[in-house]
Formats: sequence, structure tokens, C-alpha cells
Amino acid sequence: MAISSEPFLLINFKTYLEATGKKAVDLARNFEAVGLDTGVRVGVAPQFCDIEQVAAHVEIPVYAQHIDPIGPGAFTGHVLADSVFAAGATGTLINHSERNQKLSEIDKSVELARRVGLETVVCAGTARLGAAVALSEPDMVAIEPPELIGSGRAVSKERPEVITESVKRIRAVNPKVTILCGAGITTGEDVYAALKLGMEGILVASGVVKAPDPPQVLRDFCQAVLKFK
Amino acid sequence: MAISSEPFLLINFKTYLEATGKKAVDLARNFEAVGLDTGVRVGVAPQFCDIEQVAAHVEIPVYAQHIDPIGPGAFTGHVLADSVFAAGATGTLINHSERNQKLSEIDKSVELARRVGLETVVCAGTARLGAAVALSEPDMVAIEPPELIGSGRAVSKERPEVITESVKRIRAVNPKVTILCGAGITTGEDVYAALKLGMEGILVASGVVKAPDPPQVLRDFCQAVLKFK
Amino acid sequence: MAISSEPFLLINFKTYLEATGKKAVDLARNFEAVGLDTGVRVGVAPQFCDIEQVAAHVEIPVYAQHIDPIGPGAFTGHVLADSVFAAGATGTLINHSERNQKLSEIDKSVELARRVGLETVVCAGTARLGAAVALSEPDMVAIEPPELIGSGRAVSKERPEVITESVKRIRAVNPKVTILCGAGITTGEDVYAALKLGMEGILVASGVVKAPDPPQVLRDFCQAVLKFK
Amino acid sequence: MAISSEPFLLINFKTYLEATGKKAVDLARNFEAVGLDTGVRVGVAPQFCDIEQVAAHVEIPVYAQHIDPIGPGAFTGHVLADSVFAAGATGTLINHSERNQKLSEIDKSVELARRVGLETVVCAGTARLGAAVALSEPDMVAIEPPELIGSGRAVSKERPEVITESVKRIRAVNPKVTILCGAGITTGEDVYAALKLGMEGILVASGVVKAPDPPQVLRDFCQAVLKFK
Repeated sequence: MAISSEPFLLINFKTYLEATGKKAVDLARNFEAVGLDTGVRVGVAPQFCDIEQVAAHVEIPVYAQHIDPIGPGAFTGHVLADSVFAAGATGTLINHSERNQKLSEIDKSVELARRVGLETVVCAGTARLGAAVALSEPDMVAIEPPELIGSGRAVSKERPEVITESVKRIRAVNPKVTILCGAGITTGEDVYAALKLGMEGILVASGVVKAPDPPQVLRDFCQAVLKFK
Repeated sequence: MAISSEPFLLINFKTYLEATGKKAVDLARNFEAVGLDTGVRVGVAPQFCDIEQVAAHVEIPVYAQHIDPIGPGAFTGHVLADSVFAAGATGTLINHSERNQKLSEIDKSVELARRVGLETVVCAGTARLGAAVALSEPDMVAIEPPELIGSGRAVSKERPEVITESVKRIRAVNPKVTILCGAGITTGEDVYAALKLGMEGILVASGVVKAPDPPQVLRDFCQAVLKFK
Repeated sequence: MAISSEPFLLINFKTYLEATGKKAVDLARNFEAVGLDTGVRVGVAPQFCDIEQVAAHVEIPVYAQHIDPIGPGAFTGHVLADSVFAAGATGTLINHSERNQKLSEIDKSVELARRVGLETVVCAGTARLGAAVALSEPDMVAIEPPELIGSGRAVSKERPEVITESVKRIRAVNPKVTILCGAGITTGEDVYAALKLGMEGILVASGVVKAPDPPQVLRDFCQAVLKFK
Repeated sequence: MAISSEPFLLINFKTYLEATGKKAVDLARNFEAVGLDTGVRVGVAPQFCDIEQVAAHVEIPVYAQHIDPIGPGAFTGHVLADSVFAAGATGTLINHSERNQKLSEIDKSVELARRVGLETVVCAGTARLGAAVALSEPDMVAIEPPELIGSGRAVSKERPEVITESVKRIRAVNPKVTILCGAGITTGEDVYAALKLGMEGILVASGVVKAPDPPQVLRDFCQAVLKFK
């Protein structure tokens, strides 16, 4: 799967009510409009039940927030990669800090996603764990120090050394994987700082979704990307 | 929530490929047709990503296979009751033996489901555990001995004493909850035997979904219901 | 197993450093001395690795803090009921709020403990869950609202209605089980209030173990028991 | 911590009844005798409750089978590194396939063990996962394909390519870590084959503990080590 080298802004809808059901579709359409307008690559990660409708209404990448390390069969209540793909998702998050997996499950999930054609963003909380998951050869690794998630204090400004260390450690074991970061990113400046440190994209949630005017915040992010390029 | 006193046949799609994506919608429509034709109450429990499309195409009850014991917020990759409801589900399974929950989580899930207006079917593997979950006052309890699930050996014939014991123990603590059973049910005869033992409905998965002709098997089940009444 | 009708004070050592290794043995001996001196039934629940030494040095009941719902076999890193018993424990906690179990695991753990001869104290956070676990017929149920654990605000004073409701609900399904409570208990007054509400014992941890003078606090507890009788 | 370059035979007692309580102590003494007699480094990993007594009776390395990724505090029922160490253990297994951990937990467990002075053997089921855990810089990594554990079919003969691939991948990210393998090892020949493939030791359980004459099997293992050297 060829991943563009353009910076990627991926917006995680978590289980926010502001991003559930019809509101998920509306948000995704607004985010798509900002992406089209600015020419920046934007993607969304809605809840499982919203993937189908979001994917039916936008052409930008749609990610699941998680898949389970299981195949088709007797797995009531689990999230099958094939199901996520059939609903229109183009990728999936794996091992988000709010949905941490066992090491063997992360590896299996990457393999299952790849097999059905889903792009993979594997999350990790530290540079070392970022390198560990990069060994499974996902499309992207997202570094998110858990203590900064939702904090409003941007990883790219509060902990720039985590980012530079992540790049170093991940590149030592995997020269090709795309590296994103997230946690506490709320402004275009935070985005710019991350790109300066070598990040190839941003994983963001509350900073955009819970903002008073989400598309406007995303627009700021996109302008930071354009300024960087 | 007033639950009909008519026997209820609830078909769990698990993560079967035969019941994923467009095939989930087709199956649900075929099952709906059988229900309409025979006048028997039929419901389906598709995967999360298929709930919206299934609910858009049928009028029968649509159940989620699981919800997580969480509210709106920062719960990436979790299943929010509100999301399931917004997608069109009318109910949810809880604590299926393939997705066992902690005791405190079962109780919280029932409460969260009730709050958003989802009917609840809480599963339990034994008569005693059936009584324990009945204390949380779900709409229904489904007794499924795990060792018989998917076995083709019907609980209503192989272990009738589990059913009678379940009725006794559950009724001792909750006189109103609807009692279903499941595990190994593959024929109308199995269904009839369960109803005879006091069951008010059946939870079935592979017995119908993995059959060569699923609607035909469901029709046999419905005829057993009609014969019983 | 005949459980005495005398009030029981069970002290949980958690993973406190103040109650690890040699300090666990010293604490247990001091607590035993207070029990002998006052004639009140006192027990201790040290960490797994300390059970053997504690049991070798005291004659009071020694409880494990948890057992796993597994039998002998290939279960590396798990806690086998037989092992706990062989080390000298006379009982075990099950489903403590810091080690919550699946409903089916609680039931299985009670059975495994009973089979090897361990007394069982199953914890639950609410009156309803207390009744649910009482169905498994453990020797004792301990009601501990999780939000008060370690808070210093005693359940018997802050939430007396939880206790009275627990007695009512538990007795409705199990007339024989001994009922303890815990959470936030730090003084003899708290203990007295609990006994007044119908409790047959107390489960305590930080209130005694983290106190400046643990045996002195336990002595206050014991005097409250004597005053109550 | 300087780990000897001599091959290391580590015997995991799992929750086998044959290796519980007094029998754990007897086995450990017999294994120590074989080690002393042959001059081969032998260690044992008994259950938590047996660590203290085993460590009191032998001088060979004693390992816990698991530690929890927690520090001192309110963690009822968990296994604290400090407690394991205080009982006399010199090391611990981490992430055994029967006690798989989340990636972030593995990393934290290695750090906690190191902090209290416990040697660490982190298990992994594949070469890639072996490299992932080697990034956490434990003292040793043990490669055990889960499907061969307890099978009697030795990894060193059935899947030699897993071993050579593990050496290659682990060495690429960590030149110093000691590499063990395990799964299905039952004879001296199996041990010899593993050492030939570059292994620096063996993790074994049922192959020794469940044998009719455990010390005799260990003696065969030790002779294979001597023959190799």
C-alpha cells in the first residue's frame, strides 16, 4: 500500500457524543471540506457503528479506532477486520492508549488488517515502544505519551525530546514506516512544531472535536502544514 | 420497556463472514420475511459496523452483540451505548460467553443500555449465574452452557435440567425477566423442547447462520413456535 | 466449614511496602497479640510470597488476597488455590475491587477454594452485586463501595444505606453468608457504626496498615467490637 | 547485573501439583544437586507462595513466574516486584505465553524488576516479538512458539528456523541480551540442538517436571550442555 508522503492529519472521534451518529457524518463532511479547500490530507476515525455512514458521505480516509485480533467465526461482540473494511473503512488504529493490546495481539492485528487491505496506525506511548511496534511493519506509528492525551499541552512543545527520540529509535529498526505524533495538540503552532521535529502527520482528538469550532481548528492545523511545506 | 410475551427468536451473526456487510443486510431481510410470514417475533444481532445498514433495511429488532461499560468521552475503540442506539439498534447482548464481562461491568452495561433505551439480553452459562445477572434487572436473560455453544447438541435436549434449574433460580430473584436459552439449537424440535421447558425465546447463531439454507432453518424454528402456542 | 459468629476483623496488606516481607510477619504477629489480648477474632491477608512465613509465625486466620480461577496445570504466573492452601492460608479474598473478576470466574474461584478447604470472602461494590456474589455461596461477602476505599471516609458513616440495603438484598438470596463491610474505616467508631448496622465483621487495609501505629488502631477496632457485644 | 556466559537451564514449575508446596522445595533441591554435580547452571521458577521456602533451601537462582506492572500501594491481589525479591527470588519471568502482557506492561515490568534487582527473562512467541521485547533491554529473552509448549515436539528440532531467525532479529536490535528458547524440549538431544543453533539456555517446564524421573531428565539436559561446551 503506497502511503502518500504528504503530512496526514487524522482525527479520532473517540466516543464523544459530539461525534456520534449523524454528528459524526456532519463532522466528517466539514473536515473533508477543509481538506479539499486547503489541499491537506485529512482523515477521520469514527466509532464502529458510524463507519458505514461516514464512508458513504466522504471520500477522505476513514479509519476504525480498533480491530480485534480475531478472524471470521464465533467471536460475538468483537471487531472483525473484514467487517470494518466492508463498511468502507480504509484503515484502522491499533493499540491506542485507551485500548492497549497485548504485544502478540498488536502483531496479529497488523497482519489481519494488511490481509484485508486496511492501512494501519499503531499507537505507542514512548519512543522505545514505538520502535517495538514498528517491527510489526505497520503503515504508520503514532507516538502519544499517555499523560499528555487530552491535556491541551502539546507533545511537540512539552516533550519534543520524545519525538526526536522516537524518530531515532523507530528509524533504527524500520526506515519506511510513516511516523505520526499526538497528545495535547490544539493549535496550528503545535502542528508546525511537530512537523519541524520530523513528524509526518498528527493524530488528534479532543483538540479538534471538542473545540467550539472544530472545522476552524482543523483549518489552523492545515495552514500550519502548508506553511511547513 | 414492555417486552411482548410472544416467544422471541434472536439470531446472533457473530463475526461470521456469511453475515458480514451486505450479506448481513440480506440475511436480516430474509429473516424478517420469515418472521412476517409466520407471525413469529424474530430479531437479529449483526456486527457493530452493520447495525446501521441492517436497521435501515428491516423493521424487526436489531441488537448489538455487546456494549462497553463506558459513557461518552475518551474511550477510543470502545462501543458506546448511545452510538449503538443512534445507529438504529433496539437492544444489545451483554456478557455473551465469547465476550465475558466483569460482574461490575455487566451491571453497569445494563444500566447504560436502559438509560439510552436499548433492550438488554444478558447471557450466563449456568442457572446460578443466570440468577446473578437477573438481579441487575435486564429485560432478558439468556442461558447458554458454553460447552454446548456451536456444538449442534441442543441445550434443550442434552441438558434440560440446566433450563429447569435456571427457571427456578432466576424466578426466585426476578419474577419478570424474560428467559431465553441457547447453545447447540439447530432444529425446530430443539426449539419446541426449549419452549416446553418454559423458555420464552431462543438465542441462536451457527445453527441458523451457518446452515446451508438459513431462512429455511429459521422457518422450522418459527413453525415449532407456532406448534407450541 | 463452621464460621464463628464472633465479629471478624480482616486486615488486607495489599502491596504496601510497610507490609511486605519481614514487615508482613512482624505486623501479623503484632495483630495476633492484639487479638489474643482483647479476645477479638483478627485475620490478615498478606501478599502471596509472604503467606508461608506469616502462617508459620501466627495462628490467626491467614488469607490470600486473590486466587485465579484455574486448577493445577500449565498456568504459569497464576495463583493456584492448592498452592495458597499448602503455604498455610486458611482463606482467600475473591473479586476485590482492585482485582475484579468476571462473573463466571468469581463463581469458579469460590468452588475451587471450597474444594481445597479455603474460606472465601467475596468482595462487591454495591448491595446488588453483593447479592449476586452471595448466590455462589461463599463463606462471607464483603461490601466495599470502591469510591470510599482508602478515602478515610467510612462506609458505615458516609453511606450507611449501602450497608442496610446490602443486608436486605443479600439475606433475600442467602440467609447464612457472613456479611462484612469495608472502605474508609479508620476508627473504632467506624467499626462500631458498622456492627450496629448489622455487619458481622470488617475488611480494612490502609486504615490500619498505613496508620502511624497499626496495632494501636487495631486495638481501637477491637475495643469497639467488645463495646458492641 | 552480570549474567554468566554459561548455558542456563531454567525450570518453570507452572501450577503443577507435582511442584507445589513441599514438593516444590524437594524438586528444587534435587535440581540443585544435579546442577552442582554436573557444574551446569540450573535455576527454578516456582509458584509465588513457594518462592520463600525454595529460596531458603537452595542457592541456585530462583525466579518468580510473573510480576505485575505495579509499584507498592493499593493493588490487592497483585504481585509486587519488591515482594518477590524480599522472598528471595533472584529473577522473574515476564510475558510467558500463559500470562501474556500488554506491550506497555512488559516494558514497565522489566523496569520495575531491574529497579529492585531481579533478573528478567521476557518470553515471546516469535522471532519478531522476541526483537520487540529485546528493545526493553531485559537480561534474557526466551523464544517459545506457543503451539509447541507442552507438546513434546522440541522447538529446536521442529522449528529450527524460528531459533535462527530469532537470533538474527534480536541481535539486530540488542547485541547483549542472553537468548533462551523453550517449548517441547524433553531430551538432552533437544537441548544440544538448541545450543548448536546459538541458544544460550533453555526454558523448560513439563519436559522435566512432569517426567517420571525429573532429576534424571535434568541430568540428561546437563550432559548435553557439557557435550556442547
